[in-house]
Amino acid sequence: MQPFTSRRAESVAALGEEALIASIRTWLGRANPGAPYGIGDDCAVLPPSPHRQLITVDPVIFGRHFDASIPARDVGAKLLKRNLSDIAAMGGRPRAAVIALTLDARTRTAWVREFYRGLAATARRFDVAVVGGDVAQADGVLAASLTLTGEATTSRVLTRAGARVGDWIYVTGALGHTLHSGHHFRFTPRLAEGAWLAARAEVRAMMDVSDGLAKDLRALTPTGSVPALAPAALPRRRGADVRAALGDGEDYELVFAVAARADREAFTRAWRRRFPRVALSCIGRFARPDRLPPDTLKLQDFRGYEHLR
Amino acid sequence: MQPFTSRRAESVAALGEEALIASIRTWLGRANPGAPYGIGDDCAVLPPSPHRQLITVDPVIFGRHFDASIPARDVGAKLLKRNLSDIAAMGGRPRAAVIALTLDARTRTAWVREFYRGLAATARRFDVAVVGGDVAQADGVLAASLTLTGEATTSRVLTRAGARVGDWIYVTGALGHTLHSGHHFRFTPRLAEGAWLAARAEVRAMMDVSDGLAKDLRALTPTGSVPALAPAALPRRRGADVRAALGDGEDYELVFAVAARADREAFTRAWRRRFPRVALSCIGRFARPDRLPPDTLKLQDFRGYEHLR
Repeated sequence: MQPFTSRRAESVAALGEEALIASIRTWLGRANPGAPYGIGDDCAVLPPSPHRQLITVDPVIFGRHFDASIPARDVGAKLLKRNLSDIAAMGGRPRAAVIALTLDARTRTAWVREFYRGLAATARRFDVAVVGGDVAQADGVLAASLTLTGEATTSRVLTRAGARVGDWIYVTGALGHTLHSGHHFRFTPRLAEGAWLAARAEVRAMMDVSDGLAKDLRALTPTGSVPALAPAALPRRRGADVRAALGDGEDYELVFAVAARADREAFTRAWRRRFPRVALSCIGRFARPDRLPPDTLKLQDFRGYEHLR
Repeated sequence: MQPFTSRRAESVAALGEEALIASIRTWLGRANPGAPYGIGDDCAVLPPSPHRQLITVDPVIFGRHFDASIPARDVGAKLLKRNLSDIAAMGGRPRAAVIALTLDARTRTAWVREFYRGLAATARRFDVAVVGGDVAQADGVLAASLTLTGEATTSRVLTRAGARVGDWIYVTGALGHTLHSGHHFRFTPRLAEGAWLAARAEVRAMMDVSDGLAKDLRALTPTGSVPALAPAALPRRRGADVRAALGDGEDYELVFAVAARADREAFTRAWRRRFPRVALSCIGRFARPDRLPPDTLKLQDFRGYEHLR
């Protein structure tokens, strides 16, 4: 749907601020608890939690993350799923979201409705409460940023730090060809998988793959080592070559380090019992630069997504 | 400072994404704890809290909330203070913030630096940790939305609901003439005052005044009543007439309801002991529409700030 309209009657300007906010509450439906636990007060209120809290923020911007060819429902769903993937990457459980919406006065009310409906359906599916937000006007802009809070599911949160030289590198699912396959909108955030991995002692560090594995993996790599990846072991989406698998971005898979001395067979068996339909691949290990196997991929030759250029 | 530049060397595009994020961490300084408690992982991690949690989000957008005449430091400070005022309005204590920054590639690095320095100084002053964020690029846009979490300071959070017919209406500070006086950038969020009021049993409901008292007060008004305000009782900023005091917006003062039978003299004495330098005014009460004093202000004649038109 083309998000902007020249017919004032179809625009959010005709609706006005108060009616738009009331409509948003309707579109969110059960995903929005009543005030003060949801929209309608100066802040939303969340019950106390005995767990450590997680917080992350990601936007979707018209002309950058989506265009008129993407259904508004998918845009709303993706906005939440991008953030859910960050919670998954720490092994957490999502709790509540707030949304800062910025829109041109000519934005179609129908577009905003479908956006919130897509967001609400995803929020219900993953048990997220949409508790608040803000609506602001800016000429020529259609953007939303969502802040998602969550909590740790185990006594630890799995961070990007913690991998050691010699550790094995694993990745869930398949990589690459994310744009034309529609994967960048259709992916499922790996929440159950992330929580399961955080509870396994042999998993030492984890993150999600959002800017392409070649770029993202740098953040997981222990000092004094490089990721030694075997090209044949890379799980590629149908239509993806090695370059696409390493550089496309928007995979929203989990990449993690498993202790060098772990019982990898037992680990893989346990994974298959719990997640029989989700691929798990050991793609290499963190090795010293002077001890690389001959077929190692030269990651510096591949670029991930650069957000600013 | 003009935020955009035609000299590439002075722009964030020349800096690149990774160097910009590294610079942001430097500019934030002590306001940003180390990962995973701050910037640098998929999510930021916050320690558990036994209190109820608060969450709010507000943006600043170039061309809407600020322009080139406003120092970038003041823009960063205001972004945080707007959100702090929402925490104050619930009687809460702030904890942590995440920031979604959207900028044109031609944005001056120096502008972004001053913006974060202003934000960081305010964060240190009010004990807020800036724990994460996102940087996205969009043509012609310079905007930031900040999500602030906080926690309740007492066994209750003070919401907008709870006022009853007959309750007295109080407001802190002075109202109106907020734009040209610079108040909209120079205000101090009423955090200490809000926490103190939340602990007073006679205070039944509270909110902050951000869109103008005439508009905001509707949210506090109990069903079956109207706010009966005496024009002479309205605390006006120097240069503000009654219309400005009711409609200017961006006052960031607290308005609250005090129980009809409260000992108002004792309440006022306690306030003056605790906040000798902050004005407190009883401006009227919630009355039945058929029992209004003759000099009551007709609030429907005054408009507050309309965000979408």
